[in-house]
Amino acid sequence: MIDGAGVGASARRIGIDVGGTKSLGVLLDPSGEVVAEQLRPTPRGADSVEPLIDLLADLSRSLGADEAVGVGVPGLVTSHGVLRSAPNLDGVADLPVGRMVSERLGLPVLVDNDATCAVVAEAAFGAARGARNVVLATLGTGIGGALIVDGRVYRGHNGFAGEFGHMVVDPGGPPCPCGRSGCWERYASGSGFGRLGRDAAVAGHLDAVRRGVGGDPANVRGEDVERFALEGDPDALAVVDEFARWVAVGLANLTNAFDPELFLLGGGLARGGGLFLRPIRAWLRELLYEPHLRPIPAVEVVELGERAGAIGAALLPGLEAARAANR
Amino acid sequence: MIDGAGVGASARRIGIDVGGTKSLGVLLDPSGEVVAEQLRPTPRGADSVEPLIDLLADLSRSLGADEAVGVGVPGLVTSHGVLRSAPNLDGVADLPVGRMVSERLGLPVLVDNDATCAVVAEAAFGAARGARNVVLATLGTGIGGALIVDGRVYRGHNGFAGEFGHMVVDPGGPPCPCGRSGCWERYASGSGFGRLGRDAAVAGHLDAVRRGVGGDPANVRGEDVERFALEGDPDALAVVDEFARWVAVGLANLTNAFDPELFLLGGGLARGGGLFLRPIRAWLRELLYEPHLRPIPAVEVVELGERAGAIGAALLPGLEAARAANR
Repeated sequence: MIDGAGVGASARRIGIDVGGTKSLGVLLDPSGEVVAEQLRPTPRGADSVEPLIDLLADLSRSLGADEAVGVGVPGLVTSHGVLRSAPNLDGVADLPVGRMVSERLGLPVLVDNDATCAVVAEAAFGAARGARNVVLATLGTGIGGALIVDGRVYRGHNGFAGEFGHMVVDPGGPPCPCGRSGCWERYASGSGFGRLGRDAAVAGHLDAVRRGVGGDPANVRGEDVERFALEGDPDALAVVDEFARWVAVGLANLTNAFDPELFLLGGGLARGGGLFLRPIRAWLRELLYEPHLRPIPAVEVVELGERAGAIGAALLPGLEAARAANR
Repeated sequence: MIDGAGVGASARRIGIDVGGTKSLGVLLDPSGEVVAEQLRPTPRGADSVEPLIDLLADLSRSLGADEAVGVGVPGLVTSHGVLRSAPNLDGVADLPVGRMVSERLGLPVLVDNDATCAVVAEAAFGAARGARNVVLATLGTGIGGALIVDGRVYRGHNGFAGEFGHMVVDPGGPPCPCGRSGCWERYASGSGFGRLGRDAAVAGHLDAVRRGVGGDPANVRGEDVERFALEGDPDALAVVDEFARWVAVGLANLTNAFDPELFLLGGGLARGGGLFLRPIRAWLRELLYEPHLRPIPAVEVVELGERAGAIGAALLPGLEAARAANR
């Protein structure tokens, strides 16, 4: 079981969450409180690999690193801390982040996927405290994900578990940059929500929203639909409901496979949780196999917000130590 | 890790696999060999619950049960050994199988899902020996499934993990008896294979197969398509390829979620493994997210055949003892 007290007895736990535009470093006190943090722009463009490694070493030093540091990165991370691919980081492929930062720092560095870091943080200090079987899905530009299985983080055989966004839920659906069609993230991500809104506007619905953005259906964004839905516009609420159904299609599939007790939703849409959670829960009950025979998994939004990745990264060295001790 | 030597040191390991028409009881020697077995008809019709419990107690006794017995059942089994539902067993709902058989026998009785028993057996003595992350999918009338995660059986929070057949892979697809549409088992089960064949025949393809069954496309069964495909009939091979693509759609989704090292396929189609495995593997590589960045999971057929469920059931008491010792 992941709990904040048990994870990492060290006094200076430092974690860094590398985002597409900004990177956040945090220092945790023994109770898991963030006692210092630093936000820096993530290097972009050609030749940004060395500056990225420098940034990570520098952030660690300036937060006072004196033992193992944790880093969360957006992409496929192998079980040896190599970042295989990261669509949102320029020029990154097969990058041994952990080894490179470690050489700069002279300290051990543990690297994991950012969604994995987030679920570790939520399990220790957030909405998944005490839960043994959790699926986290971050509905952002795409969909990231991570798993806790029988009280332990499950990374998959190669470290690539939790790529829920590329589950195909409709082979005849819109093309995905990954090369296939109808991936779950075409519908159930933040971008998917915007697309569902534009499709509705192009089809002649969403009058009020369309007028609100100047008349051109192509200008409709997810935020616009969300704003009008919060004001009770029925067309906007219909798009929210369609989106919620697609989210629930994926959650129902994951329930049939994993049978978790809790789904944690993150990403921009988690802020508007009140608007989305109720229809997502209703659709999950509707779409689940044998719903009358089983407890329906809870669906909640993440608690730790934008710091979850960095906080979870700070817990990685403690988790690793615990795992080594249990081996 | 599940291994045959380590699981259950007992001398007389007895397991029973309850099927829709027959039930098989086996006695294992310490090396895991089946040294005695008994096959009996499964009681059917109204009031078959008491006869079923009697059968299980009687099979156990006649195989010489003197300590804990394991039972595999087709359906949703709670973590407390209650059979919540079993579409293929008459009159069974919320049946505390374990407790009832245990009262008859005066011995502990452990109950689990039949697919879970099969994966336990394959991990101990079959095609999953030494594997730490395994997804088993039985492509029969429907699709059953089970998981090994980081070397341990994963049952889910309520015991209901592995219901892969009801993942929706095409919301616009054919209706499923479960009440939804486009469930994976509408395509990728043995019945799904037959339906794909009939659809092709109705659409005017599959000339040779249609003639072979007397001319009526409605008479085309999966076995007919399989027979003609094995003889090289190109239309029949096209149906096999379409079926293989649907199987791979589900395996790719499960890979994105779980990242296993091995898929084990069971069910009637596993017998024709040579025909199906090659196109399933090819489609999996085609449909996988970022296939160039990762090892493609192996796809194999089960090794222990129709005895897998009973052999795995016989290992349940040993697994439970090991789990209790590790708690």
